[in-house]
Amino acid sequence: MMNNEHLSLYLGSFVDELYRSGVKHIVISPGSRSTPLAVLAAEHPNLKVWLQIDERSAGFFALGIAKLTGEAVALLCTSGTAAANYMPAVAEANLSRVPLIVLTADRPHELRDVGAPQTIDQLGLYGSHAKWFMEMPLPEHSTTMLKHARVMAARAVHTALTVPAGVVHLNFPLREPLMPNLSHPQLFALDKKSKHNEIVSNTLTSRGEVKPSEAVIEQLADYMKAHENGIIVIGPQSDDALLEHVLAFAERLNYPVLVDPLSNMRSGRNITTSLVSAYDSFLRIEDAVNYLKPTLFIRMGAMPVSKPLLQYMNRYAEAEHIVIDDAGWRDPTLLISHYVQATPRLALEAWVDRFTKQDYQREESQWLQDWLSIQEITATILNDEAFASHNGELFEGRVVAELQQLMHENDILFIGNSMPIRDVDTFYRLSQTPHRLYANRGANGIDGLTSTAMGMAAVCAKQHVTLLIGDLSFYHDLNGLLSSKLHGLDITIVVINNDGGGIFSFLPQANEPKHFESLFGTPIGLNYEHVVKMYEGQFSRVASWTDFANSYKQARQAGGLQVIEIPTNRNQNVMLHRQIWPKLSSWLSKYIASRG
Amino acid sequence: MMNNEHLSLYLGSFVDELYRSGVKHIVISPGSRSTPLAVLAAEHPNLKVWLQIDERSAGFFALGIAKLTGEAVALLCTSGTAAANYMPAVAEANLSRVPLIVLTADRPHELRDVGAPQTIDQLGLYGSHAKWFMEMPLPEHSTTMLKHARVMAARAVHTALTVPAGVVHLNFPLREPLMPNLSHPQLFALDKKSKHNEIVSNTLTSRGEVKPSEAVIEQLADYMKAHENGIIVIGPQSDDALLEHVLAFAERLNYPVLVDPLSNMRSGRNITTSLVSAYDSFLRIEDAVNYLKPTLFIRMGAMPVSKPLLQYMNRYAEAEHIVIDDAGWRDPTLLISHYVQATPRLALEAWVDRFTKQDYQREESQWLQDWLSIQEITATILNDEAFASHNGELFEGRVVAELQQLMHENDILFIGNSMPIRDVDTFYRLSQTPHRLYANRGANGIDGLTSTAMGMAAVCAKQHVTLLIGDLSFYHDLNGLLSSKLHGLDITIVVINNDGGGIFSFLPQANEPKHFESLFGTPIGLNYEHVVKMYEGQFSRVASWTDFANSYKQARQAGGLQVIEIPTNRNQNVMLHRQIWPKLSSWLSKYIASRG
Repeated sequence: MMNNEHLSLYLGSFVDELYRSGVKHIVISPGSRSTPLAVLAAEHPNLKVWLQIDERSAGFFALGIAKLTGEAVALLCTSGTAAANYMPAVAEANLSRVPLIVLTADRPHELRDVGAPQTIDQLGLYGSHAKWFMEMPLPEHSTTMLKHARVMAARAVHTALTVPAGVVHLNFPLREPLMPNLSHPQLFALDKKSKHNEIVSNTLTSRGEVKPSEAVIEQLADYMKAHENGIIVIGPQSDDALLEHVLAFAERLNYPVLVDPLSNMRSGRNITTSLVSAYDSFLRIEDAVNYLKPTLFIRMGAMPVSKPLLQYMNRYAEAEHIVIDDAGWRDPTLLISHYVQATPRLALEAWVDRFTKQDYQREESQWLQDWLSIQEITATILNDEAFASHNGELFEGRVVAELQQLMHENDILFIGNSMPIRDVDTFYRLSQTPHRLYANRGANGIDGLTSTAMGMAAVCAKQHVTLLIGDLSFYHDLNGLLSSKLHGLDITIVVINNDGGGIFSFLPQANEPKHFESLFGTPIGLNYEHVVKMYEGQFSRVASWTDFANSYKQARQAGGLQVIEIPTNRNQNVMLHRQIWPKLSSWLSKYIASRG
Repeated sequence: MMNNEHLSLYLGSFVDELYRSGVKHIVISPGSRSTPLAVLAAEHPNLKVWLQIDERSAGFFALGIAKLTGEAVALLCTSGTAAANYMPAVAEANLSRVPLIVLTADRPHELRDVGAPQTIDQLGLYGSHAKWFMEMPLPEHSTTMLKHARVMAARAVHTALTVPAGVVHLNFPLREPLMPNLSHPQLFALDKKSKHNEIVSNTLTSRGEVKPSEAVIEQLADYMKAHENGIIVIGPQSDDALLEHVLAFAERLNYPVLVDPLSNMRSGRNITTSLVSAYDSFLRIEDAVNYLKPTLFIRMGAMPVSKPLLQYMNRYAEAEHIVIDDAGWRDPTLLISHYVQATPRLALEAWVDRFTKQDYQREESQWLQDWLSIQEITATILNDEAFASHNGELFEGRVVAELQQLMHENDILFIGNSMPIRDVDTFYRLSQTPHRLYANRGANGIDGLTSTAMGMAAVCAKQHVTLLIGDLSFYHDLNGLLSSKLHGLDITIVVINNDGGGIFSFLPQANEPKHFESLFGTPIGLNYEHVVKMYEGQFSRVASWTDFANSYKQARQAGGLQVIEIPTNRNQNVMLHRQIWPKLSSWLSKYIASRG
């Protein structure tokens, strides 16, 4: 009998059950205390191990994999501040409902809170940011405890995946010696006499979906019929099957559908002209806001990116406000009149079904026509503005328009927070060329964006990943670039470099020049060519849009780490954005006047 | 009346009272929600603002300032994952007892847990890692609330500084608009009618020190007199005045004093030969451990770095074990027989005082003589080994010996975790040339080391800061290099580059070649010259010790960011370390045989 049989079998069972419950990827950072779990994961025939040195990057890298695959992804690190470095990614995953299983190695109980090295209080380390925290026992290899290891692994995966998906944290006290015996014949072996694991797998690993009650469907169907001026708003969400239900539903009611860029309903084969994408622009125009008087909002997904849309909702606070969400409470507007706890797809299906049975179909609608006309006018102006010459100045909005043309079908665009996501909201047009758009909008941090995109690149067999990011966010996660070299990943990173925090130029503090540059503008003047070289990538800085198109095409072809920098000017950029609104205003006023 | 008077006056009072209570430095990361506090701190005539883009680096940078000055340092960031990025530095500060005041901006209550952007649950975010968490109210400017702002600031500083020093976290809900009125005549003004602030300052800002009771002093004095074979162990600690008390105390009892490198008792004008620094080496030798039979340990400070010392304590578990600490419980040995809750300096003062009155002085001691002889033999062998030619191989241990010769008086050496601190423990000799040695040994992370050293460089007027660090730790906090460029700091960074995690080669997993390189060795093969260039520093890679000496001298002279890389070989390094022990063993056995 080996003296480390407890390690080999207890942790071996745990690792094996992670795999049996659906985990395929585990992101590991090197450390000593985590040795047995790391070695067993590497030894497991079916788990894919991704090494990440920096735990902050590791957390976001796992997030990227989980976001793209929809599967629970495991993270493993050693004791101490290693675990603390996961905090930002844990907070983001929790809010954006991404399933992560955080495994932290810890000192055993006798070495806690007594000044032992590399030991911090890891119990409940992530507080309310983890859905479930459990302290694991010291490994034992009795039949009961091997069952326990499997049940915990299965429960962890199930809990992480159940709606709303999120973060599970398991803390493992481990005593030396830390090397498991990899040649143990029972390593990863399921006890044949026990049916336990099978039961666990069947009961626990299917995701929960929430069906709305018949009564709610009926009540709200009557409600909707009574409102002509309804609006459907689709915020960030990840259910690919939702679009067809939304279109069928909207057609019955003749409601416009406002689609957030992260709803993934702005591009695809079945995109139709009944969708509205340009609201972030035209809802800034007073005349349009006054003219378009809604009486009902039906909202799904997370809150949309657009601030003008939020202000529009507040302007018509007296309108009814139905929110459909399967769990949680995502409504900072405080305007909800009806909260329907249901999986949106199932709710819409039930309504369409009901309307079909009743043969309900609204007549042609002036309301919908107005929305679509205003959408059309605005989209045209935005397109003209994006592609205007601007005296050779590289206008940040145009980056999005260019990328939309350059990206191939089914490509992935990962979008940085702060300015890039706003520019995508404004300039990414409705299109039948399908792209997948992603961002970290759970907590909207500027941290870990490169690592998240790298995580996506890690599990993308065919689609190319492009990351669109501002220079401060790019700086924040420079360490994330290592993934490309370590794991041989292909990624194209487009850095909009206005040397500082561009978004602050749009905020009130920009009018107070005192302290502005030192606290908000924060130019750091780095030439990123050097760091890209260190990571053995290719760097190009473009001076024109022709340059950009060529660089982008070359980058895609060359593969590996490709960084394209677009130098822009913060002050010019604000001006170029702001000069759009008077033009748009005059066109919309003309349209509205024509409608009398 | 301005509509933002509440912001200007409430937060103005808070910021002003931070300064009046002793805060001089505030480290700020850019963000929108934190605007009013950032702008007011920048506007305050006496606060020094340090900008840091990456909050993880910011946390460790503040830690460095606080470690060196002993003052409470404030940190400010915006809402969301920004605050989560402080987690690693908060954990380290809490355990290494460094006073930090973390100020996090937050959304107001109506925008929490409702899917609002950049909003995570920040209440109690750092859990047990902060000594005190308080949710601040929304700013108001009634007389009562302005008093409240001042009381909270004073309490925060006091709490952070009171032993054991640590982290205070205040969370500020803030509503738009976020710009305070900087021209408000009452900005930072103290209400003349209120004596409150004065009272707060007098009562709260002196640090608490703990006096031992007379009874305890008496009881343990008798105890010590009864033991000839006593050992004094000084772990990491920061009381500069402790050394003279330790020497006087040790002289009375004829006990050897084992000084950890971070006790800051290995170098300085009044270093005497009664100190023992080489125990980490000779306590690896079985003969020495058997020969030196202690009956009493008296320990102060945090746990020493040395693992052989810990094993020696466990080997003589029956010995009495007195630990003197002013707060907390720092003893992973589970060997304590007497725990004295007192400030070590005050306890030693009381004992020396008592021994003087009783005219107590022990006779010449064979016990002490043995320790000092073995120390002498070991120090000579270590010195010979450090400077041996090793066929031109750059032996990692020699880096420390070289640095000790090259550094100037009063220079600061910040030491990375993992291998560097262990090599310093072995190869940094007793010397009358004073240096200050620091490390992050609260949680022993490899994260944030560059930023901590930069924080020290930021508040060092005269002394030069040298950071000795391994390549993985250097990679982990590459972002920390920005500080030098942003704030014009002088620092010399010596990177021992063995392309991976050198310490793992000393651990059992090194004997299992399967998975070793991919999980533990983790070579990342980066040429750091590029990234140093990006940060506008100078980089040199040395091929010999002459090279190293020249590069180091030039680096000191040139100033700014200076990175010197010493390429070493992980496998060779383990061998070179291990070949010391047989030699030492044979010398010590001879000595012990001669004592019969």
